[in-house]
Amino acid sequence: MSEPTLLVLDAEPLPRLGQLTGRARVLHADESTLAEQLPLADVLLVWDFSSHAVRHAWPGEGPRPRWVHTASAGADHLLCPELVESDTVVTNARGIFDQPIAEYVAGLVLSFAKELPRTWELQRAHRWQHRETQRVGGTRACVVGSGPIGQAIARTLKALGIQVAIVGRTPRTGIHGPDDLDRLLARADWVVSVAPLTEETRGMFDARRFDVMSPSARFINVGRGQLVVEADLVAALEKRWIAGAALDVFEEEPLPADSPLWEVPGLFVSPHMSGDIVGWRDELAVQFLDLYERWAAGKPLSNVIDKKRGYVPGH
Amino acid sequence: MSEPTLLVLDAEPLPRLGQLTGRARVLHADESTLAEQLPLADVLLVWDFSSHAVRHAWPGEGPRPRWVHTASAGADHLLCPELVESDTVVTNARGIFDQPIAEYVAGLVLSFAKELPRTWELQRAHRWQHRETQRVGGTRACVVGSGPIGQAIARTLKALGIQVAIVGRTPRTGIHGPDDLDRLLARADWVVSVAPLTEETRGMFDARRFDVMSPSARFINVGRGQLVVEADLVAALEKRWIAGAALDVFEEEPLPADSPLWEVPGLFVSPHMSGDIVGWRDELAVQFLDLYERWAAGKPLSNVIDKKRGYVPGH
Repeated sequence: MSEPTLLVLDAEPLPRLGQLTGRARVLHADESTLAEQLPLADVLLVWDFSSHAVRHAWPGEGPRPRWVHTASAGADHLLCPELVESDTVVTNARGIFDQPIAEYVAGLVLSFAKELPRTWELQRAHRWQHRETQRVGGTRACVVGSGPIGQAIARTLKALGIQVAIVGRTPRTGIHGPDDLDRLLARADWVVSVAPLTEETRGMFDARRFDVMSPSARFINVGRGQLVVEADLVAALEKRWIAGAALDVFEEEPLPADSPLWEVPGLFVSPHMSGDIVGWRDELAVQFLDLYERWAAGKPLSNVIDKKRGYVPGH
Repeated sequence: MSEPTLLVLDAEPLPRLGQLTGRARVLHADESTLAEQLPLADVLLVWDFSSHAVRHAWPGEGPRPRWVHTASAGADHLLCPELVESDTVVTNARGIFDQPIAEYVAGLVLSFAKELPRTWELQRAHRWQHRETQRVGGTRACVVGSGPIGQAIARTLKALGIQVAIVGRTPRTGIHGPDDLDRLLARADWVVSVAPLTEETRGMFDARRFDVMSPSARFINVGRGQLVVEADLVAALEKRWIAGAALDVFEEEPLPADSPLWEVPGLFVSPHMSGDIVGWRDELAVQFLDLYERWAAGKPLSNVIDKKRGYVPGH
């Protein structure tokens, strides 16, 4: 039996690839060569998860990979109609980012509550200015997104004494459905956006939803930039419909240096890094190699995405 | 029976004082009048807990308050030898600051781990600079101080997946004694100083102790400024003996505008506010009024300080 061909779409090097010696023929693609190389591959590893090239290069007919793995939680950057309709299996990096993103969100919540950015500003001015800040315990959060990252965020915020409601697409035990969303947004001190990007969630945080929120609410997006209508968020902050926001993801990434978002009062901007802890690339590589082993042995894969929904369905 | 005389050392107004109408004769003192008023008082309420005036004004002999309450966790600003030797009971604000300070410390830990200050700096420069940051779960903390605030900090850090060791004066279940301190400091990613200020703890964080710590450790002081030899901390940061520090308390408060501490790289300066949430003064007033009711009814007081040790002994 000949070795399967693994095509790696990479911008950054993939660690541990040597472990596949003798078990896969490894080819490397970049965005410009992807279309011509895809028909040669049994497996596609989307290591450069910021690329949208797969959507454009996916072959409509003829030979194509039987399995695509993306080293990311979201799969919206891959899922063109031809891939969705095909029998190709798509898997994601479920699990790797859960706890790091949850910690990041907890850090943002506490920074808002304790006014740490203001204290840093006063330090630069050598100003001793005592203020009273907010107790976090007993406040309310609404986490929009019921996948493993949303659930890790909920667990971590609960551990800080916050009352947390989770909203998902399908109501089930411990998860509210979309019908409850506006009611929950209205009473939340913290709104955390971590839903997968689908046609249903695109632009879901718009002027109407910010208007529903409490004037003391803080909004945090660690999902996908396109979940938020950025112009509406900026207007909501300017009109004081909400008290503050933190965006780790944006409609356009990297955020251009001349974007007005950098300067919006009450808005904290970070460069899509909430889940990226030291060692994360290695964890992603180990996860892929484990999946590869199962695949090569003909065992069923885990982390399989429901391509129509755009995410790994929950329980 | 005539009403007891309550003397209030206050700079800020005390809420809810009207509740004592008909149950206490209330006098107000400031630092300049305290010495002459103390002999007239049955009860002294140290509402201005930043004042050290009691230490100087306490009468050596003759009439004096039978009970002193301080609206603070620490009592080091009161305890002169004459007060320690007297039969006057001293109580503190045990309980009020526990959860707020624990949340504040958690916010600092997460801000350090996730490099939030650096991200704010980059935002001001409109720079998109992705970095890998630190996972908090699985790291190690050493909390120095085993009172209710130290224990609340430990609980909160544990809830974030941090392995926590507590060090107190007296080893007991779940609390290490002073003999373990250096060993625990050496392996801690986070060192939290929240011990009461006593002759044994004064200056305990000095050059030798910073040298023992890991080069990747961050040091957080939310106890008393005098627990730390500030010059030694600055040197330790400059020599990279430790990776960062946050001070909420200082040898001299307010920190003078020309203090070099404002500008030390890697040092976060905040104005003694870690426990002061919105509504804290009201909580402190309610707590005192509850204690006053017990005292007036002849019932035993809670929150009684062991004046020789300088804090409320633990269990």
